[in-house]
Amino acid sequence: MSQRFGKTLVLDSAPSITSYSAYVGKKEGEGPLSRHFDHIYSDTSCGQESWEKAESLMQKECAANTLEKAKLNASDVQYIFAGDLLNQSISSTYGLREMDIPFIGLYGACSTMAESLGLGAVFVDAGAADNCLCVTSSHFCSAERQFRFPLEYGGQRTPTSQWTATAAGSAIVGKSKEAPFVRAVTFGAITDMGIKDISNMGAAMAPAAASTIKQYLDDTGSKPEQFDLILTGDLGELGGALLLDLLGRENIDISKQHSDCGLLLYDKDSQNVDAGGSGCGCSASVLCSYILTRVKENVLNNILFIATGALMSTVSVQQGETIPSVAHLIHISNTNR
Amino acid sequence: MSQRFGKTLVLDSAPSITSYSAYVGKKEGEGPLSRHFDHIYSDTSCGQESWEKAESLMQKECAANTLEKAKLNASDVQYIFAGDLLNQSISSTYGLREMDIPFIGLYGACSTMAESLGLGAVFVDAGAADNCLCVTSSHFCSAERQFRFPLEYGGQRTPTSQWTATAAGSAIVGKSKEAPFVRAVTFGAITDMGIKDISNMGAAMAPAAASTIKQYLDDTGSKPEQFDLILTGDLGELGGALLLDLLGRENIDISKQHSDCGLLLYDKDSQNVDAGGSGCGCSASVLCSYILTRVKENVLNNILFIATGALMSTVSVQQGETIPSVAHLIHISNTNR
Repeated sequence: MSQRFGKTLVLDSAPSITSYSAYVGKKEGEGPLSRHFDHIYSDTSCGQESWEKAESLMQKECAANTLEKAKLNASDVQYIFAGDLLNQSISSTYGLREMDIPFIGLYGACSTMAESLGLGAVFVDAGAADNCLCVTSSHFCSAERQFRFPLEYGGQRTPTSQWTATAAGSAIVGKSKEAPFVRAVTFGAITDMGIKDISNMGAAMAPAAASTIKQYLDDTGSKPEQFDLILTGDLGELGGALLLDLLGRENIDISKQHSDCGLLLYDKDSQNVDAGGSGCGCSASVLCSYILTRVKENVLNNILFIATGALMSTVSVQQGETIPSVAHLIHISNTNR
Repeated sequence: MSQRFGKTLVLDSAPSITSYSAYVGKKEGEGPLSRHFDHIYSDTSCGQESWEKAESLMQKECAANTLEKAKLNASDVQYIFAGDLLNQSISSTYGLREMDIPFIGLYGACSTMAESLGLGAVFVDAGAADNCLCVTSSHFCSAERQFRFPLEYGGQRTPTSQWTATAAGSAIVGKSKEAPFVRAVTFGAITDMGIKDISNMGAAMAPAAASTIKQYLDDTGSKPEQFDLILTGDLGELGGALLLDLLGRENIDISKQHSDCGLLLYDKDSQNVDAGGSGCGCSASVLCSYILTRVKENVLNNILFIATGALMSTVSVQQGETIPSVAHLIHISNTNR
């Protein structure tokens, strides 16, 4: 049973992440985390006829690999929690439609990995499931043409823009005595500080991350020093700086613990990603490879994973709206006590 | 704590729907359920500059009314579960962004009301929340121009097409000793029988409804006769007939109990809705008005509410893909024993 402290759910049974997998594109495979991924596709189409189908395939293959690593069949998994950036979440629905597992579709933009892990952990903790499969993805080409410009147009990118990762991440939340454990979940409320620049997602999302992190620390009476890593995804360089500034105003200093998935996935200097990576697949693939392995190996003991989502659409932007954002937090630990 | 029977969660604590509300457009307000709605907007723009903003406003006002009827403040509600048909679910995110309640965004197309009620009920049953707000909407004009044609084009509708309802529905799942109670939830898996006709959603979704209904009956050993009403939303006339046929092949006869929200919302003969209503707001507004009130008044004792969603996008259809569908089921009762 979960215990509620303010807006934070502390999961007494400490569900564990029993398997995880990350499938990424060529560019992501050339970045600093290269050797940690389960699969690197050699081209962005993944052999498919369209980028949308390529993204679906990434989710499908990544999810299948996660089950295989856990030695589970689809019938051992009670629920899929999945979503992505594409209109009507077609990467997830088409990618996972053949699994024959009850499907709970999500939309949290780039916060989806934390949203799905949080829901899966609550379900397992409550006894509503033994195993939940949590999946998300993004694809540079499908996202860019949906949200911004046709790729052929070759539009110039601003320095504040972030590079949508071509990647899928997937994890099974279940029960085992082995780390990593999900110890707590804080689902965030929507914040909207009036940012309108679609090429500055980091600034739009930083207030949501700050709000959810403060909420968790207040709820649990924890200090940043108790964590080896406070990992946001994906604020990039600008959003990350804003996050430190916003928390600083609340006398919370996470500068020693903070890192961002958008800065870990790529070599910013040589890979031309401007302010860093983004997209559901960015934080998902960084978490479901390098990070969870470091927890498993006891290199990291306690981490906070905060995935952030910008909740606009092309229509809302064209109608002059600001960009609402949300951030969900997961406390992951190498111990269940 | 929930008990699992196959793929069905039987909620031992029987969370109750403590408040519900339906806000609808002019056409829906002229239909047979007119007097059951909380509010009828006199024009489709709801006084806003765009149909998308109108849809957001409907969700906002419907949700606020639901809280007011329950005599709850936003701070009494732990989670919002919400989503809609628009790209990136902007009706929900923009409509509910000011509530300052942790927001769990969903995408289940027209299955959203059942998906959100199911998740809210599991959270309340598990003790993870006292009150969850479950919200969804659709708008004829915003959906039509997104999924099909500009309204100005005046495209001819096929007889199999359904009319997207302009409506929002909202409910609070909490704990009380008063009916209606949520007794069980069956989340469905994605089915895809190869339907490609975007003007025949009922046919695409009928197999998902059949599969989830059969799953629930098998899991619980129930018979259709034990229910006063088996209510799908929204298969319309054609999808409804297909559902009876598909279940008939499994020797399950629900013809006496079956009705469909898409056929209840409009007067099919005089209101020109072809095969019936559809859209997230159709089943949401029918359930969150007339139906729940009939349960509350003990006119209906036990009902199964099965909301169905077609999970395609314009891009998937343009790329020649078939239409995957999903259906989630909620057993609602006037008794908690």
